Amino acid sequence: MESTQARIAVDAMGGDYAPAEIVAGAIRAKEELGVEILLVGDPQQIRDSAQSDSLRQLEIVPAEGTIEMHEEPLSALRRKPQASINVSMNLVKQGRADAVVSAGHSGAAMAAALLRLGRLKGIDRPAIGAVFPSVIAGKPVLILDVGANVDCRPRFLEQFALMGSIYSRYVLGQDDPKVGLLNIGEEPSKGNDAAVRTHEALANQSAFTFVGNAEGRDILSGQFDVIVCDGFVGNVLLKFAEAVGESVLQILREELPQGIMGKLGVSLLRGNLRRIKQRVDHAEHGGGLLLGVAGIAVISHGSSQAPSFFSAIRLAKEAVDHRVLDQIQAQYQKIAAAALEGE
Amino acid sequence: MESTQARIAVDAMGGDYAPAEIVAGAIRAKEELGVEILLVGDPQQIRDSAQSDSLRQLEIVPAEGTIEMHEEPLSALRRKPQASINVSMNLVKQGRADAVVSAGHSGAAMAAALLRLGRLKGIDRPAIGAVFPSVIAGKPVLILDVGANVDCRPRFLEQFALMGSIYSRYVLGQDDPKVGLLNIGEEPSKGNDAAVRTHEALANQSAFTFVGNAEGRDILSGQFDVIVCDGFVGNVLLKFAEAVGESVLQILREELPQGIMGKLGVSLLRGNLRRIKQRVDHAEHGGGLLLGVAGIAVISHGSSQAPSFFSAIRLAKEAVDHRVLDQIQAQYQKIAAAALEGE
Repeated sequence: MESTQARIAVDAMGGDYAPAEIVAGAIRAKEELGVEILLVGDPQQIRDSAQSDSLRQLEIVPAEGTIEMHEEPLSALRRKPQASINVSMNLVKQGRADAVVSAGHSGAAMAAALLRLGRLKGIDRPAIGAVFPSVIAGKPVLILDVGANVDCRPRFLEQFALMGSIYSRYVLGQDDPKVGLLNIGEEPSKGNDAAVRTHEALANQSAFTFVGNAEGRDILSGQFDVIVCDGFVGNVLLKFAEAVGESVLQILREELPQGIMGKLGVSLLRGNLRRIKQRVDHAEHGGGLLLGVAGIAVISHGSSQAPSFFSAIRLAKEAVDHRVLDQIQAQYQKIAAAALEGE
Repeated sequence: MESTQARIAVDAMGGDYAPAEIVAGAIRAKEELGVEILLVGDPQQIRDSAQSDSLRQLEIVPAEGTIEMHEEPLSALRRKPQASINVSMNLVKQGRADAVVSAGHSGAAMAAALLRLGRLKGIDRPAIGAVFPSVIAGKPVLILDVGANVDCRPRFLEQFALMGSIYSRYVLGQDDPKVGLLNIGEEPSKGNDAAVRTHEALANQSAFTFVGNAEGRDILSGQFDVIVCDGFVGNVLLKFAEAVGESVLQILREELPQGIMGKLGVSLLRGNLRRIKQRVDHAEHGGGLLLGVAGIAVISHGSSQAPSFFSAIRLAKEAVDHRVLDQIQAQYQKIAAAALEGE
């Protein structure tokens, strides 16, 4: 445990339910996680969204406007230097915050992180990594990219694999993480051109353990610790997985308590059902970590409400406490140096 | 009901569990569905895979070899004219069978269908359509392509959308089917280049009802009747969805009976748990229909075992009974003619 509290800059204006649900999630995080919160956005709107009592311990940092979902990120960020995501990233750059959490335009969050914080050395493109639960309890799988880059060259995916492998090892505690390439068949020849070329690139490196193609059915199997894909497929998959989790909980709520025996059975299973909800509910997972930028940024879903945003803040706190950034930077440079020596 | 039984050519040599599980599924289909079965493959291997009693009512059509998963489809199909998938397609071409069902190399099945049966007029590329259950009971969603084409031009996706719309209307009984484009955001500007151009093409036609982009979380929502995507994303999604169903069942099996209360609770819930299994188990769904070729072909998963292959045969029977092919051909030509007149 760190002796100092993690300081989290919260983009209070980003997301479908901003600022009310964002602020509510931040207030809960302040109370339960022991973090410092800087709420970035329009002070009046923030104050109107919650009771003044609960806002007392949160700092409000003024910002003007936000990047709308239909806006092209780069030009919008330049046109609105005081937009909440820009101001949030600046807080990290200035050392006033340790991490940013935003549920706004994910492309804009990535672009703002790139513009304000810059990339880690050796990384062409940052990726958003999301942790999925696998069927093996306590053995999650990290999927990246889940939305930052809709088109990916093999080199980008190789970098995602290396960053993912380091994250899995040092943060998720996985010895010798097994890396897979998301594809439509096991054989190296399967998939589109990009997939075939990426398979070749991953198979020909020695910085991490590439075990081959991962099909859709392998994602949750626990056989892979890290799976790389482009941000288009990854984003579709992430949003689908979250919705499936909700659908399953809905089916359980509908079917389990049917009949008298059902009601009695459910009353006995309350504790076990809570554990199942934790394993399948996406609000427990919260968001994706932007890997490859020189700062910690968690990108939460646009549809985030308070519980989900709370989890996103918890993810940011864990990343800060585990010194994720230092680990990736140090390990990436060490491995990259060794790879260069070996060439 | 048709007065004549649907005649199904079964590629007995295709798939991870061929021929035993394929033959077992076919035997069950013969018994339960009232279809005629032609088992296509190596007669000796087929006979060795099941009891002679149960094979008595099934016709065996000799074939030599199969297309292996690592083989390049076109050259392999030409090198092995007597391969089981080639012989199966020929049976449809010769009018000896009404449909083909195969769990073999899906690219090879599509190529064989193209070579032997040809395309429907106006279709550049056939697609594999898969029916997913939505959260609204009795309102399934058709996703295509789920694996035939890993790279798709906007024109192909527009054709998939039209075929899917016709299938949804005439086979799934959906009035004015709502068509969506799988993408990573609602806005027309979202996604990669291909997605943006496809959105434009779909928005500018009048042959079917395009309602906009569908995100991963919308797939099971029941808001869309047809969702089009390239075969790479679709295939990942299909296999993921199937595995999620299995994973959920596994999590329930692990977590529900924990502790004494858990064991007691589960014993009370046996009936309700069986219903949950039926709602999430993929073996109930079976396979994908190849749309756009001049014949009915169902492509089942390589990992199909008997229950799943049985469902694939049932899908083929339904397609035959509903005269899917005639409907698509007639409707496609009518709509295409009207569109031409309007130009």
